Amino acid sequence: MASGTEHTLTLDTINPHLKIVKYALRGPIPIRAAEIEKELKKGVEKPFKEVIKLNIGDGQAMGQRPITFIRQILALVTYPRLLNNDHFPKDTKERARAVLEACKGRSIGSYSESVGIEVIRKQVALYIKERDGGIACDWNNIVLCSGACDGIRNIIKLMKCEVDGKKPGIMIPVPQFPLYAALLTEFDIERIDYYLDETNNWALDISELQEVIDEARKVCHPRALVVMNPGNPTGQVLPRENIEDIIKFAYKEKLFIIADEVYQLNVYGEGSKFFSFKKVMMELGAPYSKMELASFMSCSKGYMGECGLRGGYSEIVNFNPEAKAVYLKSISTKLSPTGLGQTCMYAVVHPPKKGEPSFDEFMTEKNALDEEFKLKAKITELKLNAIEGIKCNPVQGAIYAFPQIILPQKFIEAAKNKGKVPDAIYSMELLENTGICVIPGSGFGQAPGTYHFRMTILAPTEKLKQVLDKIKKFHEDLYEKYN
Amino acid sequence: MASGTEHTLTLDTINPHLKIVKYALRGPIPIRAAEIEKELKKGVEKPFKEVIKLNIGDGQAMGQRPITFIRQILALVTYPRLLNNDHFPKDTKERARAVLEACKGRSIGSYSESVGIEVIRKQVALYIKERDGGIACDWNNIVLCSGACDGIRNIIKLMKCEVDGKKPGIMIPVPQFPLYAALLTEFDIERIDYYLDETNNWALDISELQEVIDEARKVCHPRALVVMNPGNPTGQVLPRENIEDIIKFAYKEKLFIIADEVYQLNVYGEGSKFFSFKKVMMELGAPYSKMELASFMSCSKGYMGECGLRGGYSEIVNFNPEAKAVYLKSISTKLSPTGLGQTCMYAVVHPPKKGEPSFDEFMTEKNALDEEFKLKAKITELKLNAIEGIKCNPVQGAIYAFPQIILPQKFIEAAKNKGKVPDAIYSMELLENTGICVIPGSGFGQAPGTYHFRMTILAPTEKLKQVLDKIKKFHEDLYEKYN
Repeated sequence: MASGTEHTLTLDTINPHLKIVKYALRGPIPIRAAEIEKELKKGVEKPFKEVIKLNIGDGQAMGQRPITFIRQILALVTYPRLLNNDHFPKDTKERARAVLEACKGRSIGSYSESVGIEVIRKQVALYIKERDGGIACDWNNIVLCSGACDGIRNIIKLMKCEVDGKKPGIMIPVPQFPLYAALLTEFDIERIDYYLDETNNWALDISELQEVIDEARKVCHPRALVVMNPGNPTGQVLPRENIEDIIKFAYKEKLFIIADEVYQLNVYGEGSKFFSFKKVMMELGAPYSKMELASFMSCSKGYMGECGLRGGYSEIVNFNPEAKAVYLKSISTKLSPTGLGQTCMYAVVHPPKKGEPSFDEFMTEKNALDEEFKLKAKITELKLNAIEGIKCNPVQGAIYAFPQIILPQKFIEAAKNKGKVPDAIYSMELLENTGICVIPGSGFGQAPGTYHFRMTILAPTEKLKQVLDKIKKFHEDLYEKYN
Repeated sequence: MASGTEHTLTLDTINPHLKIVKYALRGPIPIRAAEIEKELKKGVEKPFKEVIKLNIGDGQAMGQRPITFIRQILALVTYPRLLNNDHFPKDTKERARAVLEACKGRSIGSYSESVGIEVIRKQVALYIKERDGGIACDWNNIVLCSGACDGIRNIIKLMKCEVDGKKPGIMIPVPQFPLYAALLTEFDIERIDYYLDETNNWALDISELQEVIDEARKVCHPRALVVMNPGNPTGQVLPRENIEDIIKFAYKEKLFIIADEVYQLNVYGEGSKFFSFKKVMMELGAPYSKMELASFMSCSKGYMGECGLRGGYSEIVNFNPEAKAVYLKSISTKLSPTGLGQTCMYAVVHPPKKGEPSFDEFMTEKNALDEEFKLKAKITELKLNAIEGIKCNPVQGAIYAFPQIILPQKFIEAAKNKGKVPDAIYSMELLENTGICVIPGSGFGQAPGTYHFRMTILAPTEKLKQVLDKIKKFHEDLYEKYN
């Protein structure tokens, strides 16, 4: 503000928790990438012609084509006059009509219930039941949300409460999807980091969990355990036995399980299979089958990749009824999740069946994407591991590789002398030299003395190969320079 | 949870601020209304055939038809194959193409920047400049959001900070849109209620503001003043002089202005005109033109009524740059507002111009809605005031009437003897006897000893007349019974 007038909202008077939030996904490297794009447009000379954004899990931004079936339903719901148009197959019209009939005033432009449209919640429950091999799913436990992040936020903020005079704490993996650390900082909940075991394909090591929680109990009251499966940024798919051990650990330590399962449709690893935490919990039987759990899913990932539509759901299991009432009230102040995001979720959980007119096209599009993901996951793993000084666990799921980079000692020292984090410098130099934008491992957390970066596998296959070759060249040049 | 297993999340261990949040708009009366609807479907006998929901400002739920121009753009963006379809006018295609070209990967399914799509932010800035008669608007100050509620939440949470060792406080009107009280409770910010002056058409009375803030300073640090214009639930449109006085008061008291202007396109009163707080602030000149302000707009209200799409924007003015950086970082953890909500906002701020192919149809649809709103506002005011024991200020704007109901003393006593709020009983009895669902004044706050209800003016005109006749009959019967 001009002299003579004081700002009321300054660094000294702003929410201190928001001030210290860190969110690497929109940090200095993506910001610099956007600047470089503008420089390229202006004709500034660079050793590359375009910025390749491997920094964000956004399939359609990288050229992934939306699924016709989904988009047809969305167009019909948005502009119902198209229900008379012969271009649109009967099964897309049936689904669009089912949504519209469930909307107040038969319009997607009306508010839905804050928990979402009933017919969609019911369809989600059917999807989950089928996914979990027949284990019951009560649609009253399904809460639609504007993207999984919104759903996760709504659950985590419930935990903000001192217990026995102690600050609440939540266990989160390291490396982690940075949303979790950001939310814990925002809500002033103690962050209890546990390391994923890189030598065991990023599994959770129960003795590590035990050590960490014992230490944490000295300063806070651990309330919940966040598990991400398949993992972001780490790309692992947890084996069933690991999930069983995690559930038993959570039971013993009285932890609420927060299962981030948004990549459940992104599973490629040979022998890898997705098991939901709920399924395993239920199959373990009592007392585990009575534990509290919240699981999240999104329209943004998988073959659909509809990030911009903001569709997602939460399944909440075994809630205390009074706590559930507070939760439902708290989301009611957000009015309702977006109707079109909900519709997208409906299309995802209610795909065309064999015999329906959209079936063939849908399967062709979906299978092509799934095959491509699988191929790219393998290419990424193989090509990264072919670089001297880089080692990468198999990309079994999700859409990321998180290779460990062995940095020359001189490079590390040079970075530290400048007060910089070595892998941040590495990622920035990669960007400036090649146009490739990745996120340094330090943005996700990593074991001390190790360095990583996260890259998505979302570039088109041929481009992905070129990118990996460029990373190889960059890495070799760096070795030559510093060794 | 079953015996032997304890819940970790209970009323004792849940976020205590969420526990005490109140949100009348989704409280017992709307919940009972939904139950009655189900009873009617099952064939339960009632003295009415349908529930008429005058409880929520949701035009399309009440039969308001969406604007063709808006929905065509949304359909084109969603399903770009329609860009080759002759049914869609050239101007809708131009706008759809502009949005798609600004999207990453040219798809609405990609994440946008967390502040929204640049071309849309720029168009919003042009709209504001035109709205305010040429006063500059910097598009860098426009932040798109998933409905105005999301934008308001993002600003209010910045204020959660002790200042000079005192708890922060925010001034909110009474009666108020219950979101504000809910947010202040959630964020544990002191709620500083000021009464709107019912005898002066719900204007803000500066001496009341002064008295309230002087008192509040004893217990907290007042940081911001929320003003809603046009008002919800009160339906007033503030005269320019009142806005000037409010700005001067806020300047003197060093308050950040939070201007909820989501009903700016809903103005009907004879002689009423919408002045944005920003315009008045700028025209007052320094030092007022340097004050901090956040203003909100939505796609959910006005002639568009697109509640379900969750589109909105915030304009933030004169922010301290460091505070702005924290604000922008804090919204980045929410990834991005919905692309289709943003597209809807684009259509709203970029309507067809004279000469463009959609112009005539757009104006016909829009004018019909505006005329109908105007007529319904007048009918509501006149018919309510024709009821003995009800008085209602003119419905100058927004989509609500907030009549004062004079209740028989015996009725009040009977309610109080049951430990109930009289206007809550009144509204519940109205619902049970007539199927008409309104929200009691106590859900919004009101001067002690006065009673009100809020009803929307959104029912179709003929039905609205019938509803008002039913309210008359109900009120007269009640008088007969209790007087």
